[in-house]
Amino acid sequence: MAKTKKSETQVIGKIKESARDVHRTVLRGDKPKMSMPVRSLSNVEYRTKPGHFILKDAVKERTLTVNTVRTFAQTLKVMSLSKELVSGDDIATKREAYYISKNWGEAAFKEQPESDTVIEDLEAMFGLIREQLRFVPEEKGGEVAGRLVVVDRDLQGRKLEIDCTKFGSGSYSIPIDVEHLVFRSKAKFILAIETAGMFQRLLKYGYWDTANCILISMGGVPTRACRRFVRCLSDQLKIPVYAFVDGDPYGYFNIYRTLKVGSGNAAHLNEFFCVPKAHFLGVTPQDVDLYELPTHPLKEVDIKRAKDALKNGPFVKHHKQWQKAITYMLKAGVRVEQQAFAKHGLDFVVKNYLPQKLKKVASFLP
Amino acid sequence: MAKTKKSETQVIGKIKESARDVHRTVLRGDKPKMSMPVRSLSNVEYRTKPGHFILKDAVKERTLTVNTVRTFAQTLKVMSLSKELVSGDDIATKREAYYISKNWGEAAFKEQPESDTVIEDLEAMFGLIREQLRFVPEEKGGEVAGRLVVVDRDLQGRKLEIDCTKFGSGSYSIPIDVEHLVFRSKAKFILAIETAGMFQRLLKYGYWDTANCILISMGGVPTRACRRFVRCLSDQLKIPVYAFVDGDPYGYFNIYRTLKVGSGNAAHLNEFFCVPKAHFLGVTPQDVDLYELPTHPLKEVDIKRAKDALKNGPFVKHHKQWQKAITYMLKAGVRVEQQAFAKHGLDFVVKNYLPQKLKKVASFLP
Repeated sequence: MAKTKKSETQVIGKIKESARDVHRTVLRGDKPKMSMPVRSLSNVEYRTKPGHFILKDAVKERTLTVNTVRTFAQTLKVMSLSKELVSGDDIATKREAYYISKNWGEAAFKEQPESDTVIEDLEAMFGLIREQLRFVPEEKGGEVAGRLVVVDRDLQGRKLEIDCTKFGSGSYSIPIDVEHLVFRSKAKFILAIETAGMFQRLLKYGYWDTANCILISMGGVPTRACRRFVRCLSDQLKIPVYAFVDGDPYGYFNIYRTLKVGSGNAAHLNEFFCVPKAHFLGVTPQDVDLYELPTHPLKEVDIKRAKDALKNGPFVKHHKQWQKAITYMLKAGVRVEQQAFAKHGLDFVVKNYLPQKLKKVASFLP
Repeated sequence: MAKTKKSETQVIGKIKESARDVHRTVLRGDKPKMSMPVRSLSNVEYRTKPGHFILKDAVKERTLTVNTVRTFAQTLKVMSLSKELVSGDDIATKREAYYISKNWGEAAFKEQPESDTVIEDLEAMFGLIREQLRFVPEEKGGEVAGRLVVVDRDLQGRKLEIDCTKFGSGSYSIPIDVEHLVFRSKAKFILAIETAGMFQRLLKYGYWDTANCILISMGGVPTRACRRFVRCLSDQLKIPVYAFVDGDPYGYFNIYRTLKVGSGNAAHLNEFFCVPKAHFLGVTPQDVDLYELPTHPLKEVDIKRAKDALKNGPFVKHHKQWQKAITYMLKAGVRVEQQAFAKHGLDFVVKNYLPQKLKKVASFLP
């Protein structure tokens, strides 16, 4: 909990500092301004050392003028709302933030994209994620089962231990906001799974018990909350994260790459959301032959996505192994789903595929 | 648990009876046949008494001929797979079922829609849902928090009690398959919520505690598992279900109506999935004026959906109150989101709107 307190003080400190700055400038009779990094793709770069996309140095300034007065006021109002939320241990979804502004008179936002933009400006300006400013996403996503105890608080603020081995055929659903969670686990690894169907399969066969691991269902492209949850797990527990997704460009790039390095159009967030310790368990293009899996032909969009990644994707360009894998897939012309192992029996994935793979983690794709 | 056992014996009984029938006919030297209800919209009717769409009497027969031999064999193989799953207390997703067939030689399905159709045929033929045949959906959905204990089994088959008041800011995620679950609760009602954002709001403010209720996040249109879960809750606990969704045609029809009466193109399933005891708490078109809520103009698609429902929707045609509500909305020309109450403060929905509404449940839309 100490950690959370510190970060709350930090957030309020940053907001106050910035507000004081504006205040002082106004008192001096000058025009106040706020500066924040430019968030367009032209100002983004893939850095191999931290292992994610980062913002470069271009900065935009918002100076108070007749033209900017409304946005300027709105930015200050959102900062003030954020300070209230942090102090009151409350949260607001982005949509709620928009509706709250409807009581701000002339500073009311006309449409939600306007308030979303201001929130993103503040994220970049403060170098914080909006969850730390207490603006949380609308969408949920991510279920957990296995050897993990999540430490949360109950309504009275008392410590609450949630044991993810005790959900039966159900699971623990990751909250929209995970910043305050603390974890305890003796698991050996985290398995991040693409489909709810495969998650339920592994759960049904008690795979977390036999393999001593934590199962996470991403349910497609992982949401912010899910990515942040996995990142915090990885940081706190210091155990590896293995991704188990469909063997197609969507699984490789939209799901796995997003989990590992983040995405280009949210570069100011990646340092909080990427999971640099993630490695790729499968399904690899080579697994198709090795396990004689039933496949489907690559679709147009698959081929385009793969070729784009080979040609322009900094992540793939940086990793020879991925170039080889993608080239192999394009040559074979097929994609494979993670549930295809069912051809060999429903328990094949648990009794054969996963144990065999986990014997050679060193050869996992990066 | 007794209930589950009975239903498993029933399912196996139905499968065996049907297989014996085919077997006897073959031994007699006749052509075996299977008959099942036609599942097209022409064979569907809205019945006000049970409160859902039902299949009428049209029947199609599948007789073994040179042309039907493959489908006939596939149907028998899927029946046999279902029997295995039920006896072995296992499940298969529809996708897994398709992949399992890849080891059936000539009876292998070429594409998944083929195996899906056979599974749906069996549902209609046996008057069971595919979850009872142990074929479960891919997609998950639905989170729960509040005064509910879910009784499930652990990996060793021992009773496991899952207390949904103990998950802090997180929640219980509904499994893909809910047939075996048993519930215990002293809650006064179930609140089924459209958006994850509103669910998190009510969770944050401990609404389940103050109102003594069970909160369900549907996350948009409720999945099969979520609808079946709410239905089983409603049957076992005998408490009312109130829906709290956006005030727009999507919320009224795609979400609420689906929850309450099911949908026309899955009429053979509605008796298991509809929640006849559901009532509509809000947001109603009248609430917009009453609570001075910020709105958005109705979109083309909203207007079309609303007019279609007024003209052709058996559910709306049956309920005068809904006709009035829809007409009111069309005249006002606006839609409203459930998070719009944030205009009056983040706690307005918990301290004002919901308590005021719950004082007049008799006036809820049906």
